[in-house]
Amino acid sequence: MKIKIGDYLLLQIRNYGIKQMFGVPGDYTLGFLDMVEEMTGLEWVGCCNELDAAYAADGYARINGMSAMCVTYGVGELSAVNGIAGAYAERVPVIVISGSPAAQAVKTRAFVHHTLGEGIFDTFREIFSKITCAQATIEVRYAQTQIDDILRRCFTEKLPVYIELGSDIAGIEIEVEAVVSPSLEMPASDENSLNDFIETVKSLLSSSKGEMIIADYEVNRYNLRDELNGFIAKARIPATTLNMGKSAINESSPYYVGVYVGKISDKAVTEAAMNSDIALVIGAKFTDGTTCFTDANPEIKYIHIHPFYCEAEGKIYDNIYMGDVIKKLSALSFKNSFAVPHQDHHPFVPEEKKLTQKRLYEAIEFHLREGNILIAETGTAFYGAFPIRLHKDSIFVGQPLWASIGYAMGATLGTSFAANYRRSYLIIGDGSFQLTAQTISTILHYKLNPVILLINNRGYTIEKAIHGRDKKYNDINMWKYSEIPKVLNTDDYASVCVKVNTEKELSKALALCNANPNKMIFIELIIDEFDIPVMLAEMAEEYSEEDKY
Amino acid sequence: MKIKIGDYLLLQIRNYGIKQMFGVPGDYTLGFLDMVEEMTGLEWVGCCNELDAAYAADGYARINGMSAMCVTYGVGELSAVNGIAGAYAERVPVIVISGSPAAQAVKTRAFVHHTLGEGIFDTFREIFSKITCAQATIEVRYAQTQIDDILRRCFTEKLPVYIELGSDIAGIEIEVEAVVSPSLEMPASDENSLNDFIETVKSLLSSSKGEMIIADYEVNRYNLRDELNGFIAKARIPATTLNMGKSAINESSPYYVGVYVGKISDKAVTEAAMNSDIALVIGAKFTDGTTCFTDANPEIKYIHIHPFYCEAEGKIYDNIYMGDVIKKLSALSFKNSFAVPHQDHHPFVPEEKKLTQKRLYEAIEFHLREGNILIAETGTAFYGAFPIRLHKDSIFVGQPLWASIGYAMGATLGTSFAANYRRSYLIIGDGSFQLTAQTISTILHYKLNPVILLINNRGYTIEKAIHGRDKKYNDINMWKYSEIPKVLNTDDYASVCVKVNTEKELSKALALCNANPNKMIFIELIIDEFDIPVMLAEMAEEYSEEDKY
Repeated sequence: MKIKIGDYLLLQIRNYGIKQMFGVPGDYTLGFLDMVEEMTGLEWVGCCNELDAAYAADGYARINGMSAMCVTYGVGELSAVNGIAGAYAERVPVIVISGSPAAQAVKTRAFVHHTLGEGIFDTFREIFSKITCAQATIEVRYAQTQIDDILRRCFTEKLPVYIELGSDIAGIEIEVEAVVSPSLEMPASDENSLNDFIETVKSLLSSSKGEMIIADYEVNRYNLRDELNGFIAKARIPATTLNMGKSAINESSPYYVGVYVGKISDKAVTEAAMNSDIALVIGAKFTDGTTCFTDANPEIKYIHIHPFYCEAEGKIYDNIYMGDVIKKLSALSFKNSFAVPHQDHHPFVPEEKKLTQKRLYEAIEFHLREGNILIAETGTAFYGAFPIRLHKDSIFVGQPLWASIGYAMGATLGTSFAANYRRSYLIIGDGSFQLTAQTISTILHYKLNPVILLINNRGYTIEKAIHGRDKKYNDINMWKYSEIPKVLNTDDYASVCVKVNTEKELSKALALCNANPNKMIFIELIIDEFDIPVMLAEMAEEYSEEDKY
Repeated sequence: MKIKIGDYLLLQIRNYGIKQMFGVPGDYTLGFLDMVEEMTGLEWVGCCNELDAAYAADGYARINGMSAMCVTYGVGELSAVNGIAGAYAERVPVIVISGSPAAQAVKTRAFVHHTLGEGIFDTFREIFSKITCAQATIEVRYAQTQIDDILRRCFTEKLPVYIELGSDIAGIEIEVEAVVSPSLEMPASDENSLNDFIETVKSLLSSSKGEMIIADYEVNRYNLRDELNGFIAKARIPATTLNMGKSAINESSPYYVGVYVGKISDKAVTEAAMNSDIALVIGAKFTDGTTCFTDANPEIKYIHIHPFYCEAEGKIYDNIYMGDVIKKLSALSFKNSFAVPHQDHHPFVPEEKKLTQKRLYEAIEFHLREGNILIAETGTAFYGAFPIRLHKDSIFVGQPLWASIGYAMGATLGTSFAANYRRSYLIIGDGSFQLTAQTISTILHYKLNPVILLINNRGYTIEKAIHGRDKKYNDINMWKYSEIPKVLNTDDYASVCVKVNTEKELSKALALCNANPNKMIFIELIIDEFDIPVMLAEMAEEYSEEDKY
């Protein structure tokens, strides 16, 4: 059969379960965008700018499993670099399609618009080679295998990939036998390597006194939550996640002890660690923002399980899939039997008091329900939100490694598209909001229903906590935040916007969320400039020490 | 004497005439920002995001001669990549300072925040090596020479440079003999090379029938406007600029014939070209957006003069400075004697009619005065604005090669800081405005006075002109534009905002600019979706042909 290259790419993108494509049009992409617009089952989501689109694609992929965005050459793609670097750092599979100049320009080395004007057409792909796991400049004669290969890499590695699609390429017809739906299986494990690893674990367990599980972000990316929770229920040992992997474990499980933060972990986590001499670390990266490079128990021995390799006693066991490892581990027996008694969520009883950071997170914890998505922006929001105990089947989205302020606003656009029925709750600071505020427009344009809790505390409070408490550079211009959704859209009824000063007002505002399930709710929270969550106070000290000004 | 590395850097930046530093704080930069805040004669300008800061730095440098910005590692700098790539493409000297992790993290290859979490610290510098002419990771033992060298490169090449400044480096004291103010002279020309070139030109002129001058952007960057205008007045031959170099020539000069756009040039330019067999092309790059890769006279012979080399008859004359070349050329005699009679600017008499693109530019041309800065965003605005005849001493800012929508908003922040007394007039489309709208907040925060003319024509009209006239992907969400300045700031009196439908309303709005010289004026112009300037109609056809969808 004959098929246009652009259509083949779109059909396969759809076959990976992607239903929306984010981006901004540019003249090198317009021909391809015609095909996007005509493709059933795929919706074009026009964003205000490319960074928003990249953040949205990241948020979408964290819920949906994979995502796609399309931008134009140079000016478009380079605005997305920060967003895609974040996806690379935190292992999020985003397909970046960049529309590039036609062969006529490339082969004559013409000084065309959206280039550096040097007749060189490799620069931007080279930049993306630093922040994607694979790159392809589509050539007519290899188009099918190039597309099959690069999408497979994205799916398997859960990392962003980069596709350069010439403006004259998308419309060219190629001959393919059929459009075969790709396998959604992971590469098979090397059985010998897998068995060797399990034997090693067994032998370590045989002499251990107690064990615990530390799970992290790769569990979420490989969608192994159910498998992990099944394993935990069988193993019956204390389990924790890093803040980057929060929600990998069902937080109403009797084995869940809270978020692991190295030496500044809460009492329950520290106790679990002190009662263990082995930690099965599943899909984790220890970073300054997750563990402060410290241990809750400095004597503990870590066994690392990654998507395609494991590490125990300094030895690497390669080519084994994390899903297979979890399955095998489920058959082993553990000693550290343990269970936290069931606790109801503590009710939030609002008082006629000025709202504080502490009470804000208590109110949110009490308000959230099963299945919600909680997105916490880097800043006070992240450190206030990650200790919240979530209901079953909830998903937490944060970006503690890359930590780009502005990210969570775009990510919320993405999560809302990926699962509008789950409802996304975003907590974001005013400083962060100012970076990507226009995403509000896109959320309203597509009639999405997230709840946006904006902390108006007069500037970059996280920076003030680290250094420069009273410096002007940590201040921002003040906006009338709660009025913004009404001007970035013409339909005043598409959103509900309120401003909150007290606990009682917050309770009323949260009630509005339930009363308006299909509207965007925007809640501006007036909070003191120097009020910070406990966890941030401890972390800020670590960061300040690390920076050695 | 002993001096902190950060202070040495700042003193030398100030010595290059830079009075503002744009950026967004991040924890790796806070120690350095303390020094910025304390440095007299240097003002920190906190921007809403890093792309805005990069655009502002670009706009500032185009007026001031050089600029500086400071952002944090990874998340900060990568958001500026598009802006700095634009500065590189269009030769604008911006010093990018990126605050990076301390030696403790780098040397232990730690997985710290704002990195890809791989223990690699070269990636972002490598990315910037593609879009800057020099990069330096400041080391204590070479700090002084590194700083001296990289700032000199920025000044001399008029290209962006990249400085990586560890969070622990800025505060370290070094021993220097003195803080010597840098030379503001260009490297001396190679006399032999210069004389050879001039002899070649002479010999070509001896057999020519007529000559013309085509000036472009490098004249503006090297601030050789006065020298060029002096040369033109002596040579008395027709002179034109490309749209990328508009305002290099005094447009009220009797020798100025209009903007050169290859085969689609206006009659006066085409006539001048047809009467010439030699064109002295000064500081130019022929691109699709400037000449459509065509000639107004296909028989003409081009002699290219660049900042540090010339080209005639296919031969390169290296290491000669453009300023020296213009001086030498001024001594030669030319044949194509010519003068355009003086013309007053055509008065704009408003009628009770719906505003059109054509009438908009007529009104602006009539309203502008000597010394104004006119900034035209890529899109209908650029193609409508570049044919405007400017008053003496005006400066035009546009970005036709890189052509990043959203640029002009940030650039206006920069030009306003560089020369608030000149007053900046920005013309920008609604689609472009949505990318970087928050720059409005920064303009108001710092009480700047640009006039912003926003064309509300319901989407990406330039794309609609090229392809996809009725496609959804070329539409945008509608905003209440004229209400935006009031919500991105808390002082309602900092700006005057109006909405304009008719010619008469436009005249009234422009009168408000004169009545409020110290306020930002925001004028929303309602214009038909498919109304486009003549020049864009012609260019769009070229672009569409080039893209070969």
